[in-house]
Amino acid sequence: MAAKDIKLLGARQSAFVNRVQFALNLKSIEYEFLQEDLFNKSELLLKSNPVHKQIPVLIHGDKPICESLVIVQYIDEVWSDAPSILPSHPYERANARFWAAYLDEKWIPLFRDLRTAKDDESKAGVLEKIFEGLTSLEGVFVKSSKGKGFFGGETIGYLDIVLGSFLGWVKTSEIIGHVKILDETKIPALVDWAERFLAHEAIKGVILEPEELVNVLKGYLARVAAAAASK
Amino acid sequence: MAAKDIKLLGARQSAFVNRVQFALNLKSIEYEFLQEDLFNKSELLLKSNPVHKQIPVLIHGDKPICESLVIVQYIDEVWSDAPSILPSHPYERANARFWAAYLDEKWIPLFRDLRTAKDDESKAGVLEKIFEGLTSLEGVFVKSSKGKGFFGGETIGYLDIVLGSFLGWVKTSEIIGHVKILDETKIPALVDWAERFLAHEAIKGVILEPEELVNVLKGYLARVAAAAASK
Repeated sequence: MAAKDIKLLGARQSAFVNRVQFALNLKSIEYEFLQEDLFNKSELLLKSNPVHKQIPVLIHGDKPICESLVIVQYIDEVWSDAPSILPSHPYERANARFWAAYLDEKWIPLFRDLRTAKDDESKAGVLEKIFEGLTSLEGVFVKSSKGKGFFGGETIGYLDIVLGSFLGWVKTSEIIGHVKILDETKIPALVDWAERFLAHEAIKGVILEPEELVNVLKGYLARVAAAAASK
Repeated sequence: MAAKDIKLLGARQSAFVNRVQFALNLKSIEYEFLQEDLFNKSELLLKSNPVHKQIPVLIHGDKPICESLVIVQYIDEVWSDAPSILPSHPYERANARFWAAYLDEKWIPLFRDLRTAKDDESKAGVLEKIFEGLTSLEGVFVKSSKGKGFFGGETIGYLDIVLGSFLGWVKTSEIIGHVKILDETKIPALVDWAERFLAHEAIKGVILEPEELVNVLKGYLARVAAAAASK
């Protein structure tokens, strides 16, 4: 399928957009990337995702598909001859979906709490919860990777994509918060996995460098503050 | 498969548990229902869902599966010879997953807002958002049912299960809030659909009657208040 038939409305700093990029790269699908300005969204974005008005949106032919987890599953189902993203066994699929939902709903909001924590005590409390999640995921990794390199075994799978998409922002949080999260003394298997994941051909270069993400965050906060001040 | 191999940890008043019951009924799967007391959860529940400690949990053999949407997809994939729950086409599957996530994340929290609204103006504002969602879903229904009776076409599908699971609590909200939500002048196709859905063999009797749910809610709020007072 030619690149012009597949458009991705996104922004490179978005972990949720990066997921879709990973999936498309893993399946060797060419696509056109349309960078959105989140403070001035395109007509195409507003028309394609009227409910949430959010990126990412994948436009396949004339069909828009929204929500990163929905898009990744769609890609896996449409290009089913390329390496599978979801595990083949229903129980393993259920586990991958369960942990993906946990990461999006429970775990990643902790990073905002970390950034806005008022004092060292509340920061330590948030960090503890972050590590509680990571320790569980270390166990999930050991079990589901079966001695291979990824959650998906030999190849990058659904949970690799979901957790992996956050690695840039995790590293950014380490810089901003002066904390260590990818700590090999606490989660050795995941730290190894993260390095392996980021070095993979389909992943390399997709996620912005932590220094770039720090600048993105600073710019974002400044624009939010300016918008609030002008009200 | 014998009923003893499949256990559902649940509570009859939970819409999320009802979804799993619908799916099991639709696939004609026998199972054992274990009623949980949500103020005194069983060891089996805490052990089976240590992350969220929430119902529903399906235990298939010795494998626990958690989170209603994950469980429904699991059931559809394991018992794949019985009538399909997810649509067969990837784009329709993506749409069903998109709207299911919308209902759980954006739409259903509006009913708590409706119950706790401080004055008529804020209540009207919440109602408007509830109808915004329903009007969108009316459009989705007309498109995806293709003149047949359900979102899934001739048979009950994923989105029928997800929206349908809330019908008891929607009716309860109508009673408590003195409002009309299933309003045939505004969403005629959905009002017809709701009646058809609740009369279906696999669904009938699963959802508690609105009067029972009102009592469940009163009991729940009283226990929450008592627990808060004893602190």
